[in-house]
Amino acid sequence: MITLTSDFGSPYPAAMKGVIRRHTSAELIDVAHDLPRGDPRAAAFWLRFVLPEFPPAVHCAVIDPGVGTGRDALVVRAGSHVVVAPDNGLAMPPARALAAAEDDVDIWTIDVDDPPSATFHGRDVFAPTAARVHGALADETDGSVSEMGPTAVVDALAGLEDLSPAPDPVDLVFPEPSVERDDDGVTAVDGEVLAIDRFGNVITNVPGELIAERDWIRVDGDLTPVVETFGAVDPGERLVTVGSHGYVECDVNDGRGDGAFDARPGDSVRFVADNVSL
Amino acid sequence: MITLTSDFGSPYPAAMKGVIRRHTSAELIDVAHDLPRGDPRAAAFWLRFVLPEFPPAVHCAVIDPGVGTGRDALVVRAGSHVVVAPDNGLAMPPARALAAAEDDVDIWTIDVDDPPSATFHGRDVFAPTAARVHGALADETDGSVSEMGPTAVVDALAGLEDLSPAPDPVDLVFPEPSVERDDDGVTAVDGEVLAIDRFGNVITNVPGELIAERDWIRVDGDLTPVVETFGAVDPGERLVTVGSHGYVECDVNDGRGDGAFDARPGDSVRFVADNVSL
Amino acid sequence: MITLTSDFGSPYPAAMKGVIRRHTSAELIDVAHDLPRGDPRAAAFWLRFVLPEFPPAVHCAVIDPGVGTGRDALVVRAGSHVVVAPDNGLAMPPARALAAAEDDVDIWTIDVDDPPSATFHGRDVFAPTAARVHGALADETDGSVSEMGPTAVVDALAGLEDLSPAPDPVDLVFPEPSVERDDDGVTAVDGEVLAIDRFGNVITNVPGELIAERDWIRVDGDLTPVVETFGAVDPGERLVTVGSHGYVECDVNDGRGDGAFDARPGDSVRFVADNVSL
Repeated sequence: MITLTSDFGSPYPAAMKGVIRRHTSAELIDVAHDLPRGDPRAAAFWLRFVLPEFPPAVHCAVIDPGVGTGRDALVVRAGSHVVVAPDNGLAMPPARALAAAEDDVDIWTIDVDDPPSATFHGRDVFAPTAARVHGALADETDGSVSEMGPTAVVDALAGLEDLSPAPDPVDLVFPEPSVERDDDGVTAVDGEVLAIDRFGNVITNVPGELIAERDWIRVDGDLTPVVETFGAVDPGERLVTVGSHGYVECDVNDGRGDGAFDARPGDSVRFVADNVSL
Repeated sequence: MITLTSDFGSPYPAAMKGVIRRHTSAELIDVAHDLPRGDPRAAAFWLRFVLPEFPPAVHCAVIDPGVGTGRDALVVRAGSHVVVAPDNGLAMPPARALAAAEDDVDIWTIDVDDPPSATFHGRDVFAPTAARVHGALADETDGSVSEMGPTAVVDALAGLEDLSPAPDPVDLVFPEPSVERDDDGVTAVDGEVLAIDRFGNVITNVPGELIAERDWIRVDGDLTPVVETFGAVDPGERLVTVGSHGYVECDVNDGRGDGAFDARPGDSVRFVADNVSL
Repeated sequence: MITLTSDFGSPYPAAMKGVIRRHTSAELIDVAHDLPRGDPRAAAFWLRFVLPEFPPAVHCAVIDPGVGTGRDALVVRAGSHVVVAPDNGLAMPPARALAAAEDDVDIWTIDVDDPPSATFHGRDVFAPTAARVHGALADETDGSVSEMGPTAVVDALAGLEDLSPAPDPVDLVFPEPSVERDDDGVTAVDGEVLAIDRFGNVITNVPGELIAERDWIRVDGDLTPVVETFGAVDPGERLVTVGSHGYVECDVNDGRGDGAFDARPGDSVRFVADNVSL
């Protein structure tokens, strides 16, 4: 299986699929092609969330504002998965999520011949690389790529001559929230908005366990209920919940949290404990 | 085959696909992931239209405004198809369309263990259930799911221990239009807008046979030609036609009917007979 | 393999997939379903760009403003590919790109029985035709459609009784730019905008070789750098580059070229040589 992720819209990803089909019959699954444009951090956030749901696979992810400028192209092994992506940090957070341990990651650069274009390396570099990597994995595992273990992946990649160890890839680390505590526990958290989804849900970098025990919390000053799910408040009402990724979200039931909380990716957001009973 | 339908946008459906791929290699076909948010009625309309085109399959449909609130999760057999969906009515109109007769439907609730999240049952409940149902069907039919008959489906589902008959599922019935007649036939129909598509076509609940014999009709008072297809009027002109689903549509050739007719889902629309010749 | 292209949005393409699945298990790959509405020229541009990346396949492309009006439906062989499309010109530019030579194209009309609808021939005409064509190709090649040569395609299509040679299909020819030269070479080019992509990149009909050697060029009077890729200028800055399709684009790094250059499909755009050094 090869998963495909980009910010290309259509029909560019179809060109990548055509190229891959010239090399391999591996199943193709789209993760998303409408991710925020030129934003490796947003893509890394979503891939860290989604890719661990998959069985072992090759993941081709092309959010590539530096296309054609000389940035390297990476092949990253993490556990039994392989991520093929530009060297802009995008690959590292999902790789850490896919790895069984900190040292369960290998990183190579791809030795790329002069590609046909300087603006569409999704078609000219990453798709053919993903196809070749998948071919090597299929050869190594007699076609059982989705059941392979890390050793098979390491062995298969060792046979690819145009991979060189990458000593110093670009990394991308999500900001850690700043936590204030007193003797009773957490009193305030300064976090950051990481992503907004189709529903307008505002996803932050604050781990859910920092707020999960509370009934109410102040979000940038405004008292807001902490609930398990959207339907726990009336339609149109604001809420705070722990999303399916484990992070704190600021949402509106049947409405848009990004509007109600006036929040955009990169904005700061302050949560303050408030033990009221209403 | 497993079809997937949701209002999730991206990349949430990819998480569902990853989960399914851990259980089965069944083909995955997207019906839509941009359906109107939190609107089981709109989804039921579209699924009633689309699903009968498919050969026997498992259809996983998650438009789920009540996620995490305790609403049940359903497995519905209709003919040789299985629909897996939240118990909010969404499943019933397509099930009736898939069934050969009124009693050709079986409905169960899924006994769900405490799911990992309260907000993403697409990933945590419906995707794994669809995968398990497909696995049971594949076992029962030696892999020939798309050629199976209703008996095989019943037998396969009987082997799933966590299904309990659902005596009283939520149903969702589309409104019937109100029809006025005189001795010559239909004189007026009061209908309702069910859906708007990408083209802005205004799809109503009025069966096409009620207007198909006319050349002109008044729509909310305005005389409009009744034609077989868009190109029968000039670009930018209004028209009434019977859509591919059999219902009356109010459209504009190469334009947007929702704008021209000022119509939104749920709006009422009145058609009055008018035998003019121009 | 069957590729699918339309301007339908969702969920109409799923109805086409269901119909195809009743006939064949051929792999289905979406090229795009959000192409500009009712615009065969835009679709032809994108298909000419994307389809040549694929191995031999059946390409079902339905941008069909004349649906139900009596326009013919075509089956076009080009090289080892088959394009199934309405007879509105859409099929011809990609067919020329897929053919090995000018005479490497055969064109038939499909003898269509009265279809169930006058407004959704994607479901009622083109999807079943693509499925039947694929079935004939699979029979002819023992299932190896993606490795077939042109002779096998010709032989397979000769067995389909409802195909009649199309002596005079609608063609669609992209406008040629007008080029001014002096003794030193090209001094000015009057081109036209063919398409805008998700990034807002303005794609013209001007072949890249006409400007590739320059460092700067005037676009509608404004001096603009000619660069190899987006990142060669600062974010927010305008640029001219040769896109991955070989044509001149007017773009903005990390911004929208269509806004900055005030360009829409069909607009004229004038490039004037300007040998400045800054």
